[in-house]
Amino acid sequence: MPQNRQIVLDNCPVGEAVATNFKLVSTDTPALAEGQVLVRHHYLSLDPYMRGRMNDSKSYAAAQPLGQVMIGGTVGEVVESRHTKLAVGDKVVGMGGWQEYSVVDANVPGSLRKVDTTHVPLSHYLGAVGMPGVTAWYGLVKIIAPKAGETVVVSAATGAVGSAFAALAKARGCRVVGIAGGPDKCAYAVNELGFDACVDYKEHADYISLSKALKTVCPDGIDGYFENVGGMVMDAVLVRTNAFARIAVCGMIAGYNGAPLPMTNPALILVNRMKVEGFIVSEHMEVWPEALTELGTLVATGKLRPRETVAQGIEAAPEAFLGLLKGKNFGKQLVKLV
Amino acid sequence: MPQNRQIVLDNCPVGEAVATNFKLVSTDTPALAEGQVLVRHHYLSLDPYMRGRMNDSKSYAAAQPLGQVMIGGTVGEVVESRHTKLAVGDKVVGMGGWQEYSVVDANVPGSLRKVDTTHVPLSHYLGAVGMPGVTAWYGLVKIIAPKAGETVVVSAATGAVGSAFAALAKARGCRVVGIAGGPDKCAYAVNELGFDACVDYKEHADYISLSKALKTVCPDGIDGYFENVGGMVMDAVLVRTNAFARIAVCGMIAGYNGAPLPMTNPALILVNRMKVEGFIVSEHMEVWPEALTELGTLVATGKLRPRETVAQGIEAAPEAFLGLLKGKNFGKQLVKLV
Repeated sequence: MPQNRQIVLDNCPVGEAVATNFKLVSTDTPALAEGQVLVRHHYLSLDPYMRGRMNDSKSYAAAQPLGQVMIGGTVGEVVESRHTKLAVGDKVVGMGGWQEYSVVDANVPGSLRKVDTTHVPLSHYLGAVGMPGVTAWYGLVKIIAPKAGETVVVSAATGAVGSAFAALAKARGCRVVGIAGGPDKCAYAVNELGFDACVDYKEHADYISLSKALKTVCPDGIDGYFENVGGMVMDAVLVRTNAFARIAVCGMIAGYNGAPLPMTNPALILVNRMKVEGFIVSEHMEVWPEALTELGTLVATGKLRPRETVAQGIEAAPEAFLGLLKGKNFGKQLVKLV
Repeated sequence: MPQNRQIVLDNCPVGEAVATNFKLVSTDTPALAEGQVLVRHHYLSLDPYMRGRMNDSKSYAAAQPLGQVMIGGTVGEVVESRHTKLAVGDKVVGMGGWQEYSVVDANVPGSLRKVDTTHVPLSHYLGAVGMPGVTAWYGLVKIIAPKAGETVVVSAATGAVGSAFAALAKARGCRVVGIAGGPDKCAYAVNELGFDACVDYKEHADYISLSKALKTVCPDGIDGYFENVGGMVMDAVLVRTNAFARIAVCGMIAGYNGAPLPMTNPALILVNRMKVEGFIVSEHMEVWPEALTELGTLVATGKLRPRETVAQGIEAAPEAFLGLLKGKNFGKQLVKLV
């Protein structure tokens, strides 16, 4: 029975999250019951939504219980099976959490999804061909619903969601503009991810300055926006929206640490007759098959080549997560566990 | 040829609108061309949207040109006709503006609508059975789309839009809660307009205090909100929204004078997966016949008994309008011209 190293939430952050909110523990993996499998995790996904769950307050998800393994998406390999439909060696995606192994009741619908790594690398099932990719797909296709020729914008452009958003929007004939932090990320967005332009928000001291930069790269205004960030970036985009713009609200990362960030001019929602809609992709499981098919094809054909930042070992997860919250990652943030 | 007294926009407000932004002028009414009618206005409608047009800046409507008659809805009587389908004595609704008479080309689609005053008083065609009523209908039916048993809230509850909203929402089996300024308006909302409860925002110094009062009268949370005001009232409502709440944004009256008012916690749009949608009823002419039929029936059967505040004479229009912006009116603000 292998030892299983785990990261648990030890205490809730007061203001900014810090490494001492987490604790590394080690346990034995238990013997399997009928219907269960033991999965050895190859990769753990780190995502901004986890920060919201660390608060002892209302979020869209249940709070992360203290002393329990942090929740998180994982890909791995079945190393022991007492389930007829899963064999040792199968590659699976699940919500295994911040740990090296998980014991999963494979009879629970949606608990594990077997994946094919012939054309898609295993790690991508946590990014472009996983939850972040479907998130981009839902916001673009179901909320923004762009027409060819429209201009759509995404913040956190080089992240897992942003890069999938760009490939999906280009496939629909849109002009796609990114917003990212730093010249390296902006160059990467344009040169590697297919963005038509990318604006570096770090060059701008306030939303008015940033909105002027957006005007230059969005000469026909903004028809759709995928919100990953909030705050000054959102304020700047709203100034440039066209009538009947659609805003898909997926993240407010800038507001997770500390006080809420206001929206400076909500009257623009009326002035431009906008639709602003928040969503969580896990509440729209009906779109996953269609979305994953399109995303898998984009990856397999080289039209979506997502970048990853990979930390090594479960003990590196807390620092990698804190870096993600500060935008230090470049592309999808993963922790490699094997 | 009668003399026609008119109010024109003399200069744009700097900050708060004042009486000297307007000027009273007098002209002859011109002779009619073929297809035209001369309408003597009985009532002029005063509405918050007019303040937005007085700015020399981007609004959803074109700016009001200086030196020209202020735009506005009117009801009146045809007193001279060179159009085959309209006769002297016909009662008509139109956009005659802040003046005693208007010359209208009746061949322009939508320029004049003949109305029946058998069961609905003429003035109500500017309120409950006119643009404000249809505005309430569109926000409730097309954006909030409530189920029976849901809780819906409207700000500016005793105004023309708010009172129509209450009757329409009660007809759909909702719990309807109003927000208004002062104990008289709140009592009137509950006793005369059919609201289940009404909260006096003037009793609260900030949005947190107001949101606590809303919790008491919305024990099951808020599923739909019709936004007429913005600012602190909107902030307070958003705190009490349920998952998948729908917010119809129709007005931001508190922000028209001076700087834009922020939305304090836009992250709630994500947390509660809300849909926030701005609209202008004049862009949805397709719903008017259905909406006016329902509203006319509610008035004719006594289920919607809207209150009016009536100023006397065209010269009283500017002060009545400035009072409207400060919430001094009680129900639909009109100017009686005959």
